Amino acid sequence: MGLLVKNGEIITSNSRFVGDIWCEGETITRIGKNLEAPADAEVIDASGKYVFPGFVDPHTHIYLPFMGTYAKDTYETATIAALCGGTTTLIDFAIPGRDESPLAALETWKSKSEGIACHDYTFHMGVTRHDSQVESELKEIVAGGIASFKIFLAYKGAFGVDDRELYNILKLARNLGVITTAHCENADLVVEMQNELVAAGKLGPEHHHSSRPPQVEALGTRHLCTMAELLGSHVYIVHLSCENALREALEAKLRGTNVWVETLIQHLLLDKTYAERPNFEGAQYVMSPPLRDKKNQNVLWSAVAHNLISTVATDHAPFDLQQKEMGRDNFTLIPNGIPALGDRVRLLYTHGVETGRLDIHRFVDSASTQAAKIFGLFPRKGTIQPGSDADLVIYDPKVSEKISVKTHNMNIDYSAFEGWEVKGRCDAVTVRGKVQVREGKFVGEKGIGKLLKREATHHVS
Amino acid sequence: MGLLVKNGEIITSNSRFVGDIWCEGETITRIGKNLEAPADAEVIDASGKYVFPGFVDPHTHIYLPFMGTYAKDTYETATIAALCGGTTTLIDFAIPGRDESPLAALETWKSKSEGIACHDYTFHMGVTRHDSQVESELKEIVAGGIASFKIFLAYKGAFGVDDRELYNILKLARNLGVITTAHCENADLVVEMQNELVAAGKLGPEHHHSSRPPQVEALGTRHLCTMAELLGSHVYIVHLSCENALREALEAKLRGTNVWVETLIQHLLLDKTYAERPNFEGAQYVMSPPLRDKKNQNVLWSAVAHNLISTVATDHAPFDLQQKEMGRDNFTLIPNGIPALGDRVRLLYTHGVETGRLDIHRFVDSASTQAAKIFGLFPRKGTIQPGSDADLVIYDPKVSEKISVKTHNMNIDYSAFEGWEVKGRCDAVTVRGKVQVREGKFVGEKGIGKLLKREATHHVS
Amino acid sequence: MGLLVKNGEIITSNSRFVGDIWCEGETITRIGKNLEAPADAEVIDASGKYVFPGFVDPHTHIYLPFMGTYAKDTYETATIAALCGGTTTLIDFAIPGRDESPLAALETWKSKSEGIACHDYTFHMGVTRHDSQVESELKEIVAGGIASFKIFLAYKGAFGVDDRELYNILKLARNLGVITTAHCENADLVVEMQNELVAAGKLGPEHHHSSRPPQVEALGTRHLCTMAELLGSHVYIVHLSCENALREALEAKLRGTNVWVETLIQHLLLDKTYAERPNFEGAQYVMSPPLRDKKNQNVLWSAVAHNLISTVATDHAPFDLQQKEMGRDNFTLIPNGIPALGDRVRLLYTHGVETGRLDIHRFVDSASTQAAKIFGLFPRKGTIQPGSDADLVIYDPKVSEKISVKTHNMNIDYSAFEGWEVKGRCDAVTVRGKVQVREGKFVGEKGIGKLLKREATHHVS
Amino acid sequence: MGLLVKNGEIITSNSRFVGDIWCEGETITRIGKNLEAPADAEVIDASGKYVFPGFVDPHTHIYLPFMGTYAKDTYETATIAALCGGTTTLIDFAIPGRDESPLAALETWKSKSEGIACHDYTFHMGVTRHDSQVESELKEIVAGGIASFKIFLAYKGAFGVDDRELYNILKLARNLGVITTAHCENADLVVEMQNELVAAGKLGPEHHHSSRPPQVEALGTRHLCTMAELLGSHVYIVHLSCENALREALEAKLRGTNVWVETLIQHLLLDKTYAERPNFEGAQYVMSPPLRDKKNQNVLWSAVAHNLISTVATDHAPFDLQQKEMGRDNFTLIPNGIPALGDRVRLLYTHGVETGRLDIHRFVDSASTQAAKIFGLFPRKGTIQPGSDADLVIYDPKVSEKISVKTHNMNIDYSAFEGWEVKGRCDAVTVRGKVQVREGKFVGEKGIGKLLKREATHHVS
Repeated sequence: MGLLVKNGEIITSNSRFVGDIWCEGETITRIGKNLEAPADAEVIDASGKYVFPGFVDPHTHIYLPFMGTYAKDTYETATIAALCGGTTTLIDFAIPGRDESPLAALETWKSKSEGIACHDYTFHMGVTRHDSQVESELKEIVAGGIASFKIFLAYKGAFGVDDRELYNILKLARNLGVITTAHCENADLVVEMQNELVAAGKLGPEHHHSSRPPQVEALGTRHLCTMAELLGSHVYIVHLSCENALREALEAKLRGTNVWVETLIQHLLLDKTYAERPNFEGAQYVMSPPLRDKKNQNVLWSAVAHNLISTVATDHAPFDLQQKEMGRDNFTLIPNGIPALGDRVRLLYTHGVETGRLDIHRFVDSASTQAAKIFGLFPRKGTIQPGSDADLVIYDPKVSEKISVKTHNMNIDYSAFEGWEVKGRCDAVTVRGKVQVREGKFVGEKGIGKLLKREATHHVS
Repeated sequence: MGLLVKNGEIITSNSRFVGDIWCEGETITRIGKNLEAPADAEVIDASGKYVFPGFVDPHTHIYLPFMGTYAKDTYETATIAALCGGTTTLIDFAIPGRDESPLAALETWKSKSEGIACHDYTFHMGVTRHDSQVESELKEIVAGGIASFKIFLAYKGAFGVDDRELYNILKLARNLGVITTAHCENADLVVEMQNELVAAGKLGPEHHHSSRPPQVEALGTRHLCTMAELLGSHVYIVHLSCENALREALEAKLRGTNVWVETLIQHLLLDKTYAERPNFEGAQYVMSPPLRDKKNQNVLWSAVAHNLISTVATDHAPFDLQQKEMGRDNFTLIPNGIPALGDRVRLLYTHGVETGRLDIHRFVDSASTQAAKIFGLFPRKGTIQPGSDADLVIYDPKVSEKISVKTHNMNIDYSAFEGWEVKGRCDAVTVRGKVQVREGKFVGEKGIGKLLKREATHHVS
Repeated sequence: MGLLVKNGEIITSNSRFVGDIWCEGETITRIGKNLEAPADAEVIDASGKYVFPGFVDPHTHIYLPFMGTYAKDTYETATIAALCGGTTTLIDFAIPGRDESPLAALETWKSKSEGIACHDYTFHMGVTRHDSQVESELKEIVAGGIASFKIFLAYKGAFGVDDRELYNILKLARNLGVITTAHCENADLVVEMQNELVAAGKLGPEHHHSSRPPQVEALGTRHLCTMAELLGSHVYIVHLSCENALREALEAKLRGTNVWVETLIQHLLLDKTYAERPNFEGAQYVMSPPLRDKKNQNVLWSAVAHNLISTVATDHAPFDLQQKEMGRDNFTLIPNGIPALGDRVRLLYTHGVETGRLDIHRFVDSASTQAAKIFGLFPRKGTIQPGSDADLVIYDPKVSEKISVKTHNMNIDYSAFEGWEVKGRCDAVTVRGKVQVREGKFVGEKGIGKLLKREATHHVS
Repeated sequence: MGLLVKNGEIITSNSRFVGDIWCEGETITRIGKNLEAPADAEVIDASGKYVFPGFVDPHTHIYLPFMGTYAKDTYETATIAALCGGTTTLIDFAIPGRDESPLAALETWKSKSEGIACHDYTFHMGVTRHDSQVESELKEIVAGGIASFKIFLAYKGAFGVDDRELYNILKLARNLGVITTAHCENADLVVEMQNELVAAGKLGPEHHHSSRPPQVEALGTRHLCTMAELLGSHVYIVHLSCENALREALEAKLRGTNVWVETLIQHLLLDKTYAERPNFEGAQYVMSPPLRDKKNQNVLWSAVAHNLISTVATDHAPFDLQQKEMGRDNFTLIPNGIPALGDRVRLLYTHGVETGRLDIHRFVDSASTQAAKIFGLFPRKGTIQPGSDADLVIYDPKVSEKISVKTHNMNIDYSAFEGWEVKGRCDAVTVRGKVQVREGKFVGEKGIGKLLKREATHHVS
């Protein structure tokens, strides 16, 4: 048995040709012109369509406890939505509380996903404090195949770490050859400015941006970069949203710091006026860092095009309208998140490739290959080559569709992109050789997703 | 008939696996595990070795008239040296004098290469003035498959263009969808500072750097970038040598300018103390921009690693010791150039990949794929995929060799890297399926190189 | 005989006290509390008012031939307007055509001013080409007391110099100890972009900004700064209008370049929407560099406050509405200039000091002392001390007035600031001890202004 | 009675003339040519000499408890040394421990100085924690005439404040119109890097720099600047030592932040090789931020010349050789400080004015006027005008002297500048009209120094 994808225009970050892909079992084994397949093989005719490697979202929150409630998606709903939108691998975050055991937290996250997820996945391991017990557990966790950390400079008292911890976590990461992803906003500035806004009666979602302006993110970014520079640690800045912060990261690159940058499809396409919409509609657009002034978007697009920003992710964190109501009287209580897991790939294709802002190879690179490389999934994921997992997206760029809450598969009662037209439909999506999506709809088997083990690849020379 | 490369570790800028490549005639048609070949096929066993796509040098000068003499290589000697070092495609420069016809110049360059070159090649078309005749010829030249220009901000009176010309050439290039490569040094500053040095009796090669310090290059780079920004033209900065200039290019990228950057293997590895060597030995290390202060090297390496610099080239321009003597009494008369065509790939591998400064995929990318992409050769060149030309390098990283004038194949009586150890030997190098090199030595057929036709790919959206 | 100014609050760039100033003849000789004066002395009671040193405008064009016509002010009308507004010294520009003799040009300018000007003045010597004849005349001119040059990077073919000339003029200036003022816009970019706009039928004054955007000025500024850095020459950037250009100058300062920056009161207060006013009203606001996007104003104010910008001038160049009509059908023919000679001081006081943006000492410094220091007039002008010329401004900050064409004394039929309220009236203004203005009106003697001889003070250590 | 200083060349930051100064009692009341004095007046003939305003050192530590010991100077020894070197006003720091009352600390410092100091002085009030009690006391302290704060980003656990405190202290300062001076080094980075060095057995003073490299200072500087930008607070960066940090401050200025910068005479003249001297001699050169790489010095000089850096101070903190021995086995225990109180003015004159790096007016400005202006002492101190305190320095620039521990008056057994030649001797120094120094030696009355009350002048508009 096997799968033959025929006559598609196969496009990876560095190849483009019309040909065939032959998958034996879960793996691509042959690529070429006019490949033959056994009689029992499934054949997908991809003529006139693109064949991309499955896309990788390196930043999602599926299981996410928050103030007594939980983000709405399960690993089932989330991965189905992801698949229908072309994403075949995601990296979630296992985040212990300040006083929890990392190992225990990881077990919790595993229990929510194993046998439930419909495509493969892995976790960044949240590090929310530093002591010898944590250090010991982290070594075990890394040895077990979870080869990246996540730290928060923001969210003091909850997940945030102080400078002493930050330094020592980055040092541990360096010694283990592990990359550390970081949420870079100065914690105290946010808290103090929130307090001032609340005290001044500025309570609506339109004030969210004022509580964490670009300076706060730029300062956090600089802070992390200096630490990484001094230690030689490898770091990855999640959800970078503005030019101010980008300049800090670039300066660090020039100084030889090993820093990679991620932005979000939301920051590329939405600006802060969305969060200023009246009647609390703005709450649907509250996330952190906040949606920014529109002028940042050109800079972000240019940075993605030139590879100054490596990856485009979603920070998917779905809270529904009822949950958003928790912050009706106080924006600081609005659960943060703008769901986009199922929309990312097609939005990026439409607004990047179709407009000429992104080379099609760089599109694949930023939405798939780079994430796989940075986080130790490559070449199993992120490309099309013999030996890779047969995660393929057959994409028909001629079909136009409208994004809508009615069809977006995510377990969430609004879409931040309601009515937006996208070019392209995922005619077929495979996970390790298994067709999970046909004509944009999930038709596959649930629960087949596996937790991917990753090697530490960020050893310092 | 055909060629089967078996069991090599195939590495491109975004793939890595052990497998086989099957080439039918001149083209790769199949990639996979356990491929079979007809009995008459040639089989190369690449076990334990890397298989890279043929490397591309986007910046060489083979036929190069200079002050009544000529650079020493022919297309035969140069391409043999290139092949033995893993380079299978080069882009040379057809450069008319200020009063010459571009078409005529192109014919001259063609006449020196056709039926002589031992691997494929193409030209950047030098544009050394702007008027309606030139514009008309350039359109014909582009239509004929020469899809990139070269301009000089330096060399006023010889090849250099003034600002009015510069603006209009960049505009023409934009309208034709052609990228413009540029030598970015302010012409007048160089001339005036040369004059001052000569007047002060500072005549040795050690004064070459003082006549064109980093500020001169940074100013030229900024000049070009502003022009390109205002016009929306796509530009490529050749042989960027220092942090000052790099910062200008990066700032332009952030502003959305379509600018790409090339550095040279020489600038990555040699510093200005080489040109200060006594007894006129320094003359062997005179090129422009000059070898720089050593502190720039870390910045350049970091920029290559992070893709802020896209390509690593050679600016190969071989003048022998006797020719260098022309400037014995006056450094401004020393023919410029540090030969490196055959050494680039192995030096970059050794000092980049082996030291950990460069990811192996980025090594391939910077020395092959990016040049192919930027200059319209991709995916015919620069990668390994079905449909690509079967230009392959079977590279044995376990072999150590010493670079020497005795073995470097270039028609030049010194090596700037004499005695340097490199890791790796090109066990086999193919050109469109034909084995041209075995065990590091040219064993192939001369004159098979073809002039590659390129489409204009830099259309502005 | 003499003049005693009593009980004023005397404010210079670094002193502030209530006291008296005693002037003998043309000179201040004593400063203190309770000074006595001979019976025949004139006494001005300055109680409750400020006493400032006479203000210096380092950038005006009084006699200015342009396309067959002339700017409207004479040295009489201009200096009367200046005096009524608190300016007691101006520096004009003697600008030869490309083929004229500098000495002859200087004589022309002298002939227009001697015996006519109502306060003191001097000239920057325009250098519009470089050859040995010019060099020889410039040495004579400097020896004669004209110790600053002016060059144009813009206005190619008219006043502009090419890079070879630029380099050699800056070198001559350095050798003579003379500072060079420079109009920093890239000449060719302006011409080419003007041509494109005109060809596209974009002919109104609202397109003036598009023909010389901030990038053009920033590039020119960078160009000059690099030249000055390499030569060690002292330079002064006139009418800097935007953040882009300012950053270039600041970077140069950090690199040790001796560069000073001037901005204009117009750029601090007016933005480009003025030039976009309908019905050709915008023509009144056409100058070069153009009025900029409003966001630049905060940066300029901050830079003045922190001394990153040294001086605030006017670039006074009065063309009346009829003359502006020359460009009715083509904005490139609109005579450039926004008259402001008589308004500068009060506008700067009102929008700087009264709003808290400018410390009152820095106000005096930027509008008087710095210009005097930079251009070799200090301490004769620019401060209040024994031995200085008795040029004093008794300023009543409690009086509010409205600027109007009806009262502005300049020989020009519109005011760019019509109806703007200013705080402060010049109750008395003296020129070398002679009261020329009382209650804001000229009451003095015409023609008493002298051409000031200046020593070269910019010798390089 | 009174004092007449005759025929000196009187030089302030913006005046220069030969004349006389008449002081009645403690105050200058008249300035002019040929002043007469009553018969009983003291007359100083300053012919051929400069007369400067008394110099102001805005950063000293006289009473300074440290690890069970105390800095060696008393207010008597320190002010005598200061006077002999031309400094007539200093600003010390009253620094409570984290759990002490600010008011109590201020009383302690007053008790050490009142009736003891030989010239005037005031304090910056150290703020080492933030709570309502501290806030209440600070209001009282400001009302009592101590109008500036000092915070430490470094020295966590001792004087350092955390981000919440930092934010609220800066907010309080803004609301009170008070400027906050800040030691800008990231606390945790220093501690962690010290720990690593100590653990690695790197214990000598030559490792001090590695424990607080430029990145640590630049990060601290950026941190403060972002806080100040967001709050609109006025801040003053003490002892800025390197280009990295300077760029942060300049960027903040451009963004409209009210930030002023101080550097030290030590950082202008000494580099890190001093701290690397063998046999523990390096310990004499241990201070924080550390002496830097020499390349920073040109940048600092240029920044002082261009007013990008406002003031030049000493951070005088004298620990003798025996006290330095506390860190013999561990550089982190070396008491920090390089004494320079008495040497600052003459070193700055010699290496600034005499070399041409500093205009003589800017010399006075940076060493006297600016400190007075920024800290609310102007125009009582920092200039020469009627109404100012008669603090004058009669300086003979023709006399050369050598700095030596034998003559430096400071109570410290080494000089960091031993044997350095300086141009200039303070022939006379007066404090409020009283001659305290003659021919470079203290001849005056002890204990006459007064605590200066200062108004809050940094109100936000």
